[in-house]
Amino acid sequence: MSVTAAKGFTAAGIAAGIKQSGNPDLALVVNNGPRRAAAGVFTSNRVKAAPVLWSEQVLKGGQVSAVVLNSGGANACTGPKGFQDTHATAEKAADVLGLGAGEVAVCSTGLIGELLPMDKLLPGIETAAAALSEHGGEKAAIAIKTTDTVHKTSVVTCGSPGTESGGGWTLGGMAKGAGMLAPGLATMLVVLTTDADVDSGTLDAALRSATRVTFDRVDSDGCMSTNDTVLLLSSGAAGITPGHEEFTEAVRTVCADLARQLIGDAEGASKDIKVEVINAATEVDAVEVGRCIARNNLLKCAIHGEDPNWGRVLSAIGTTQAAFEPDQLDVAINGVWVCKNGGVGDDRALVDMRYREVHIVADLAAGSATATIWTNDLTADYVHENSAYSS
Amino acid sequence: MSVTAAKGFTAAGIAAGIKQSGNPDLALVVNNGPRRAAAGVFTSNRVKAAPVLWSEQVLKGGQVSAVVLNSGGANACTGPKGFQDTHATAEKAADVLGLGAGEVAVCSTGLIGELLPMDKLLPGIETAAAALSEHGGEKAAIAIKTTDTVHKTSVVTCGSPGTESGGGWTLGGMAKGAGMLAPGLATMLVVLTTDADVDSGTLDAALRSATRVTFDRVDSDGCMSTNDTVLLLSSGAAGITPGHEEFTEAVRTVCADLARQLIGDAEGASKDIKVEVINAATEVDAVEVGRCIARNNLLKCAIHGEDPNWGRVLSAIGTTQAAFEPDQLDVAINGVWVCKNGGVGDDRALVDMRYREVHIVADLAAGSATATIWTNDLTADYVHENSAYSS
Repeated sequence: MSVTAAKGFTAAGIAAGIKQSGNPDLALVVNNGPRRAAAGVFTSNRVKAAPVLWSEQVLKGGQVSAVVLNSGGANACTGPKGFQDTHATAEKAADVLGLGAGEVAVCSTGLIGELLPMDKLLPGIETAAAALSEHGGEKAAIAIKTTDTVHKTSVVTCGSPGTESGGGWTLGGMAKGAGMLAPGLATMLVVLTTDADVDSGTLDAALRSATRVTFDRVDSDGCMSTNDTVLLLSSGAAGITPGHEEFTEAVRTVCADLARQLIGDAEGASKDIKVEVINAATEVDAVEVGRCIARNNLLKCAIHGEDPNWGRVLSAIGTTQAAFEPDQLDVAINGVWVCKNGGVGDDRALVDMRYREVHIVADLAAGSATATIWTNDLTADYVHENSAYSS
Repeated sequence: MSVTAAKGFTAAGIAAGIKQSGNPDLALVVNNGPRRAAAGVFTSNRVKAAPVLWSEQVLKGGQVSAVVLNSGGANACTGPKGFQDTHATAEKAADVLGLGAGEVAVCSTGLIGELLPMDKLLPGIETAAAALSEHGGEKAAIAIKTTDTVHKTSVVTCGSPGTESGGGWTLGGMAKGAGMLAPGLATMLVVLTTDADVDSGTLDAALRSATRVTFDRVDSDGCMSTNDTVLLLSSGAAGITPGHEEFTEAVRTVCADLARQLIGDAEGASKDIKVEVINAATEVDAVEVGRCIARNNLLKCAIHGEDPNWGRVLSAIGTTQAAFEPDQLDVAINGVWVCKNGGVGDDRALVDMRYREVHIVADLAAGSATATIWTNDLTADYVHENSAYSS
């Protein structure tokens, strides 16, 4: 499954010794064609890791034959040496696989500001190449974990597989990310693969359309990564070219599933919070309000304490530039309209917050646009995970 | 001391029964003149509490004879009834003190979204008026505490007190605020008083100049209050009109002292963090970068863990619109330049983080502007304080 669910792809995940723990830390994904089209979206952080700078250039060609991913080090803020290391990584993979380095994308994740142990990483690429398999998707997904407690994969199968006339196609993928999750673009490492026969322009349009309403609307802790990368690779091995809408919908489905898994595994979280903004004047307004609510530390603490503290929702909305009148704001928490017309609404004691998922609706009464942002609560475990050691 | 350090002022702080704990919760500050000039700055949150809406109107007249402050309830998001309650509070104080309600400012702090117990508050005003004293400043400062662990006061004396020719004047004040501290304008309740003879226009200019570089640069938890109010009252009782610069400097000194005390008492904090941005293209850039660093939860956790994780500083800077080149960024933590030219600098093991104050310098290498933002670390205690009960 994972990145090898679609035909035409092999993958591997191994322990190269980059992580001191000895856990898997190097993944390789190879597109065996016949097509090798690709698209990518990257962090909008202006401080970009070396692999992001490299892969952005690779993607300009619209073709990717292999992706090397490592955990155990972000290779961010590592200067010219860090960029040389990324380049050497791509060169090594190209050598071993018989490709040009310009077709090899590189992704890294881990601590910022430290050089990668190239004496471990380069031999690891040989080991990974030898382990490439059509069943290697799970191992690849495991090898890119950092503080993730579980690996994340998703697959959809479309068309009519097995029928003589139709024939199906598949889109699958893997993701990692548990902290430093906030929109910028991707906020995580994600590799998606499909055996549908799709050109790079269509891949790019579908990927941007999907990430805009999925990964871009995940905001775990308001912190934007230097390494976010989402890649979408087409092998064309199914020999089918789906309609644009059908394909985009499949990409969106897999992205939404992976995004939801990322929030479900966010560092220290005990609640998954769905912030739905409705009746906004514009989608931009809805997203701004949703993000402001999702980033409010006081609210995130309150949700952790199962306290339907709608005043903190209103104080967050009040910091935005969105169109609304304070005395027309309504807020529901888990279906109870605890705030009506900017004031006290139904009895907050009616709000049941025992379950992991919490649903906040903010009605701006200013139009008909809507947006949903996913976030999580702020917990002592989050503080512990991000203060007890460098990550 | 506090608001009664300056001549011409009396104050009181009493327990009116607004707080269920029975702790002091009502303060009264009265300007006995001869001048009754005033200026105020208020939260820029668009969701404003009833007392903010009321006091903004009062301040338009440039004259305030009394201030009623209560803790135990913010009277925010309380609709028309909440505004009527604020109005009734001002009317009651005006009746008792023989003033017009239009000269009475009102400040409230506490939980958002609940009506104040007016049956406790109104009789409390009578009790407070009966307790007014030239020595009541400390009690007033104590009565406005919410989650503050200590009350906060500050005083400066200027000119040449006691000399026949010169004669001195005094500026003092009190502040409350421990959570929901972020710039908007004030982010707290503050009342400053002076016996210098200063008109309301000069008070306003001095207050805006001072808050811009003090309270506006405190960012404890990124959450902006609905109730922030800073008032500056002049009694003129010293009969001295200081120069504009001298007066502004005194206001700035007291505001800076109180702002520093607010950060020092921030909810759950174990570290006070001074974020200094230097060599920015503009002051706006410097403030934007400083705030982004100050609001980065991952960095705040790292500082809590005494981890000089400069990568989190760079990832925060990268989210801003400020002018800089990523490969020219330098970062020092407690005097050690751990990041140089956007990459690894001096050995992070040299950074001594044992002490409460942590000093981060971000050099943007883009100009000569500078700004300092004060914040604190993010701790499990902060989470506990803001999740264990409503506040």
